[in-house]
Amino acid sequence: MQKPVIAGVGFTKITAHWKYSLKDLAAEAALKALDDAGNSEIDAIVIGNMMSGIINGQENLGSLVAESIGLSGVPGVKVEAACASGAAAVMWAGLSVLSGVFDSVLAVGVEKMTDVTDNEDVSSALATAADYDYEVFFGATFPSLNALVMRSYAKTYKLSPEDFGYLPILMHKNAVDVAHAQLRFPIDMNGYLNSPIISDPLKLFDCAPIGDGAAALVITRRDVAKNSDHLVEIAGFGSATDILATYRRDDFTRLRAAELATKRALSMAELESKDFDIVQIHDAFSVIGYLNLEALGVVEKGKAHEFIASGDAERSGALPVNPEGGLKARGHPVGATGIYQIAELALQLSGRAASSQVEDAKVGVAMNVGGTGSNVIVHVLRRVE
Amino acid sequence: MQKPVIAGVGFTKITAHWKYSLKDLAAEAALKALDDAGNSEIDAIVIGNMMSGIINGQENLGSLVAESIGLSGVPGVKVEAACASGAAAVMWAGLSVLSGVFDSVLAVGVEKMTDVTDNEDVSSALATAADYDYEVFFGATFPSLNALVMRSYAKTYKLSPEDFGYLPILMHKNAVDVAHAQLRFPIDMNGYLNSPIISDPLKLFDCAPIGDGAAALVITRRDVAKNSDHLVEIAGFGSATDILATYRRDDFTRLRAAELATKRALSMAELESKDFDIVQIHDAFSVIGYLNLEALGVVEKGKAHEFIASGDAERSGALPVNPEGGLKARGHPVGATGIYQIAELALQLSGRAASSQVEDAKVGVAMNVGGTGSNVIVHVLRRVE
Repeated sequence: MQKPVIAGVGFTKITAHWKYSLKDLAAEAALKALDDAGNSEIDAIVIGNMMSGIINGQENLGSLVAESIGLSGVPGVKVEAACASGAAAVMWAGLSVLSGVFDSVLAVGVEKMTDVTDNEDVSSALATAADYDYEVFFGATFPSLNALVMRSYAKTYKLSPEDFGYLPILMHKNAVDVAHAQLRFPIDMNGYLNSPIISDPLKLFDCAPIGDGAAALVITRRDVAKNSDHLVEIAGFGSATDILATYRRDDFTRLRAAELATKRALSMAELESKDFDIVQIHDAFSVIGYLNLEALGVVEKGKAHEFIASGDAERSGALPVNPEGGLKARGHPVGATGIYQIAELALQLSGRAASSQVEDAKVGVAMNVGGTGSNVIVHVLRRVE
Repeated sequence: MQKPVIAGVGFTKITAHWKYSLKDLAAEAALKALDDAGNSEIDAIVIGNMMSGIINGQENLGSLVAESIGLSGVPGVKVEAACASGAAAVMWAGLSVLSGVFDSVLAVGVEKMTDVTDNEDVSSALATAADYDYEVFFGATFPSLNALVMRSYAKTYKLSPEDFGYLPILMHKNAVDVAHAQLRFPIDMNGYLNSPIISDPLKLFDCAPIGDGAAALVITRRDVAKNSDHLVEIAGFGSATDILATYRRDDFTRLRAAELATKRALSMAELESKDFDIVQIHDAFSVIGYLNLEALGVVEKGKAHEFIASGDAERSGALPVNPEGGLKARGHPVGATGIYQIAELALQLSGRAASSQVEDAKVGVAMNVGGTGSNVIVHVLRRVE
């Protein structure tokens, strides 16, 4: 089967973009991706976004973004899968390209989180990824649900507070020289351990920041791509859901949907976990990053902290993880994150990742997680030689 | 090219479902559709919904609905295109079936509009389909924008107030014997003309009501369908966007996106407008219903009211329109509406439409409109002999 390819990549810096609207951000990323792809004709636009209705008073992003880049008329739609909305947009764009109905589809992930200035409003909007009837109504927030997962994981594998620090420390280290990253400062173990408790045992430095950003990809097929110098193939993708309410799952220390999505993506790609040369994990919270690595089959259960501590996940390590700083330090504009992950991977595999470039990666994987693991989408990318 | 087929149809009554949640409604429709399809294995779930984040505090509907029908694990995603979210879900489900990656996909449209009791809250949520920066911020609501279109249309074609009454009167007449319809009472011209002005010249009886409902379809391919006695083919689909802010368009009396979407759907179906035996239009407001008929190429510009007044659009007429009562009287649960339209068409084409059944229709079309025509999706369905 012919696979979709990524022909163009574009994104904005992640920060509090006070001067830009949702539309401005989406347009900047989209125009960069179109330019990078040699300005392919676009047959449809798929927007990955989670909270535009609640935070920005704006739905109908398909029409909004199409118009903003001069493509009004083209089919346009928004796809939402909580924090996995970005990868969902890429996956459905990929499916539509495989259908043969569309040749080239623009996937744009965008989130403008700072249009509300009260953190409680952002927390409420994020909480719509949880189960309203059984979690949110009773006051659960996303940090509190992830604290539950972290507590259970720490207890099961007898982890110390330090053990969770290795991942955020590496992410901040990686982001320092990345121009589009949000938090470009290093942290050390002391700083991590002394960062405020958000929801015990979750510390401030376990959490990705709030930020605005947009990322875009031109997804097409090799036979219709306008350029051929930096194509990256989407060798496989897989998606899975899990029970929405966290407390109703059998085991808090596994992300079942992540395991299933990985299996599906690898099956489509005809590859195995050992084939990964570079990994993008969804480290919205440190423990979720660890659970990603386990679900991807690259570390044993309960050993993710040892893998990070060993140096193997560094840019120069055996299996680089989030070399641009991940959600923790590169930033996490929710509905855009999945597209940032795939975009960064595409740059790495085509040797265009600038300061964060790792050496000679041929196969990479990106895991984008919605809810506390209730909706997970995995993409396996391969360099086109 | 092999086309997608509709193997199963299910929906709920449309009303104020005080006792049911969004999840309950979605599950009822989905389980009926699965049963109707002979319980196909489902490879993915696509939810059409517009306002769940704002009104119900719930996004991540892919996971929620998958779980509610015992399919947790299956890929699940929400698709949003304002009031065209339902047809968008069907179109993207159709694309994914054509991709060959999925065999059978469940498309579910759901909207629970009565979880807020203040009409202003519903109006605000609906207004997210308009342009926030250039319309909503300045106080425009959906009725006021559609009143603008109605005023312009009436002036251009010299229409009297009576001329807009023919469509809602027919819709109420059609809905009287339809069990799942929301407004099952007839109205006459006097009642129409004396209904209160909502936004001059728009009257109350020009507007579809607020209501809760869900509709679902099992979309698959003929070679993998579990049943064969009532399959209906999706012969073609087409989608298009237009400038979001209504006032910025060149001509208020045309729905450009609707014309473009129709052209694309007909091209894929290899059919012409004259081939339609039955039509589903998006009569959220009377004038939008008329513009739909014109964009579909079944009436001349400015003549839609004459067509309706002539009786040709009745169930027994030359070209039946919304024989179950349309958005106006069957009901308009926003994100579900596009799936209701396609579901009612599928029932008609397979001879299963009960009291609303029209005679011997082979080809039908459904037009689902988001915004004031800023996002339009058209499906052309054909009876499988």
